[in-house]
Amino acid sequence: MLPRLWPAVHSLGWIVLTLAAAEAIMAGVAYGGDDGEGSSFAIGAAISLLAGGAAVMTTKGRAFELSFRDAVILTVAAWVVVPVFASVPFLLKPDDLSLVDAFFEMVSAVTTTGATVMTGLDDRPPSLLLWRSTVQWLGGFGIIGLALIILPFLKIGGMQLFRMEFTDRGDKALPRVRQIARALGQIYLGLTAACFVVYLLLGMTPFDALNHAMTTVCTGGMSTHDLSFGYFENEALHWAAVVFMIAGAIPFMAYLRFVGRGTFRERIEPQIPVLIGILGGVAALMAIYLLASGEFTNVGEAVTRATFNVASIVTTTGYSSADYMAWGEFAILVFFLITFVGGSSGSTSGGIKIMRFQIVWATIVQQIHRLVHPHAVTPIRFGGRTVGDDQVLSVAVFVVAFLGLVAIGALLLSLTGLDFLSAASGAAQAVANVGPGLGSIIGPAGSYASLSDIQKLVLCALMVLGRLEILSVLVLFSSRFYR
Amino acid sequence: MLPRLWPAVHSLGWIVLTLAAAEAIMAGVAYGGDDGEGSSFAIGAAISLLAGGAAVMTTKGRAFELSFRDAVILTVAAWVVVPVFASVPFLLKPDDLSLVDAFFEMVSAVTTTGATVMTGLDDRPPSLLLWRSTVQWLGGFGIIGLALIILPFLKIGGMQLFRMEFTDRGDKALPRVRQIARALGQIYLGLTAACFVVYLLLGMTPFDALNHAMTTVCTGGMSTHDLSFGYFENEALHWAAVVFMIAGAIPFMAYLRFVGRGTFRERIEPQIPVLIGILGGVAALMAIYLLASGEFTNVGEAVTRATFNVASIVTTTGYSSADYMAWGEFAILVFFLITFVGGSSGSTSGGIKIMRFQIVWATIVQQIHRLVHPHAVTPIRFGGRTVGDDQVLSVAVFVVAFLGLVAIGALLLSLTGLDFLSAASGAAQAVANVGPGLGSIIGPAGSYASLSDIQKLVLCALMVLGRLEILSVLVLFSSRFYR
Repeated sequence: MLPRLWPAVHSLGWIVLTLAAAEAIMAGVAYGGDDGEGSSFAIGAAISLLAGGAAVMTTKGRAFELSFRDAVILTVAAWVVVPVFASVPFLLKPDDLSLVDAFFEMVSAVTTTGATVMTGLDDRPPSLLLWRSTVQWLGGFGIIGLALIILPFLKIGGMQLFRMEFTDRGDKALPRVRQIARALGQIYLGLTAACFVVYLLLGMTPFDALNHAMTTVCTGGMSTHDLSFGYFENEALHWAAVVFMIAGAIPFMAYLRFVGRGTFRERIEPQIPVLIGILGGVAALMAIYLLASGEFTNVGEAVTRATFNVASIVTTTGYSSADYMAWGEFAILVFFLITFVGGSSGSTSGGIKIMRFQIVWATIVQQIHRLVHPHAVTPIRFGGRTVGDDQVLSVAVFVVAFLGLVAIGALLLSLTGLDFLSAASGAAQAVANVGPGLGSIIGPAGSYASLSDIQKLVLCALMVLGRLEILSVLVLFSSRFYR
Repeated sequence: MLPRLWPAVHSLGWIVLTLAAAEAIMAGVAYGGDDGEGSSFAIGAAISLLAGGAAVMTTKGRAFELSFRDAVILTVAAWVVVPVFASVPFLLKPDDLSLVDAFFEMVSAVTTTGATVMTGLDDRPPSLLLWRSTVQWLGGFGIIGLALIILPFLKIGGMQLFRMEFTDRGDKALPRVRQIARALGQIYLGLTAACFVVYLLLGMTPFDALNHAMTTVCTGGMSTHDLSFGYFENEALHWAAVVFMIAGAIPFMAYLRFVGRGTFRERIEPQIPVLIGILGGVAALMAIYLLASGEFTNVGEAVTRATFNVASIVTTTGYSSADYMAWGEFAILVFFLITFVGGSSGSTSGGIKIMRFQIVWATIVQQIHRLVHPHAVTPIRFGGRTVGDDQVLSVAVFVVAFLGLVAIGALLLSLTGLDFLSAASGAAQAVANVGPGLGSIIGPAGSYASLSDIQKLVLCALMVLGRLEILSVLVLFSSRFYR
């Protein structure tokens, strides 16, 4: 028995209408710049408008409230349907991307992964490049909403920890959710604007600054250049990007919390010092390794390159400023391992995420203490709150499910012909929504273009599963869901 | 403040005295076979006798009962001290193994890992080969005792599940433990004898049959030939080894349970069907892959090779009958992933172990159900028993700690110069006590001889940590332990 679909279809209709508006703007950009893509976007906008409008009109007028099932269906459908409509403009030029390529590119964008099958970016029509950046940016805002409003409600992967922050007030919950969503939107827009201005002041063209501001703050990492961020040979720009990648990997509620009431300590989100500590520690280790191994002789250059690329992977942005495949086997292993880390829960970044590492670490320490004092009560705390056993368990289960999904993905990619390193890193980067993998094919200097259609579709599935924290998709396979 | 050490020293003394007896027997074998190792073993026996005797004599006469702290100290000390005394016979020939090599070889033996730095095995003195096998075999029995008697008491990694089986009876616990230990010893000896007879009947020499029977049943995997089990070009022998490797990877309590009371279903240990299912499934997949890729054309040969090598890794025995590095990238990834699986809890094998996969899987299913019905009570069951939340949590924490330890080990091995695949697989095989890694250096056709001393010592630490289920070692680093 299928659950009722119309509430999800209705909401999805509004999302597709938003996409139609974005495509219409892009058509304007294309016609204005006369880059030959105007009609592609106009037709894309028309298709999205028709489909979204039809979905909204045929389902309107009923009492409207999303149930648990509706929220799950809407979430999964949104991350599958949006890439379909977003890829239409790519398909209207017969000499360009294939159906699978266009879908892959847009799944990668909307999940803020940033893996790309497109080469020759520097010569592409500007409107197409801006479209990729825009879809990433919209996908980034989508995930903040999902992580803060829907996932806590679903109790997935410990996300219930983020629930209390705005459901404390009982019957005022809905207005409060709207109020918070608006505040988060303002922060997202404000950060993007700030990043744009900084990039512009540090020497980017307005077009590059706009695209990179959007794909930095959403930790997506799509660039307008084949060399990615390595195109900009300006150290200050790299450091600015580090700052804004971290800004995007911080839980967006943390900004509201910081300007709220309480002592400084109470107002600091507990994931931030750990994120910065891990990132700084790994970057320092990498810089020392690069200098010790003789790969770099200039200390400043080693520190900049190490910090930029480590921050890019840990925040799951996925820009690269160097081909770190050439940095030696230790560097490759480090970049493989940090693919799993991720930014903070409640931000635009992917991966296992800092909050879960903090809780797992606290649990290991607690278990060791319990060995010594079996009856001691040592609750696990996160940011001043006590974390319940069921929350700890849901975190631990998420970590194991994450790693299990990477293993299954790697097996599928390997079975279809990829080598060990490409398969393992390809699956890991997809589930963590990072972008570049490792190896000569999909590494920082490579592209996903040469993969087979099956491999691209496997990666699409992994990107969506990872983006939606896995269990919210798996629940669709539970027979109980349909009862 | 250090805890009192004498109870651990006393028990350790008895263990070293047992080792002295084994060395004395080996001296007899060496003198009898006149292989030139007689005096090495005689001196080794004398040193062990003196040290063990001194430890026992200086600590005797006091009221004797092992506390929690004593048990932890004894456990860790035993797996570090025994290899020291066991390596003495190797050190008395100046042209042979270095200090680190001998220690590595004996840590690998006593943890039933089976990684070896020794080459030219076919030409080695028989008594030295028999010594390696004997230390593995004793180490295998040690781990059964540890897993069934000490670890459940420590509540590590879900091992408390195995506690109820013999502590149901309150004040009769100690006699019951002795009775069970004796029964387990008889099963271990019986399995080894049966394996010896079968190997003999299928064509091994008595010496090969004895050595391989010992290292099969303890899932250790040290061989008397450089070609490992590939030396025996007899398919029946390979299948016999598969049967006895699985017999060693079954919880030894399962044998007692099977001959106990209850229905057939109640008497079957729940890990067994899953172990055989995983092993059979992966072997079948591998055989199909080998035939499809054209690596093998004979179906029987493909099935035998695939099953033997998969069973060898999953049971953490570590024999090889083929250089599966040549089977292609998919095979390498599969062998990497099954390194983590392991046999059953309560057996001689290492790895994450089947019980934990069952509990983690059940927890993931439970969490998905809870998404749909938040208030539904769906307890996790294992073999007819309900598993408490704290047990599930200790399992999940173990899995994460296991993977974290592999990551740290891989980083250390990589930092000291190993390539990505060697470092990752080397760390994984050590923590899982498997034996062979992957790659050209430490793969199934390689050896650990060429590694640096630091790399060998890192692997020693990983082998001991993995063998003792990690947390029982980490507790030594908790300041509370010493209060």
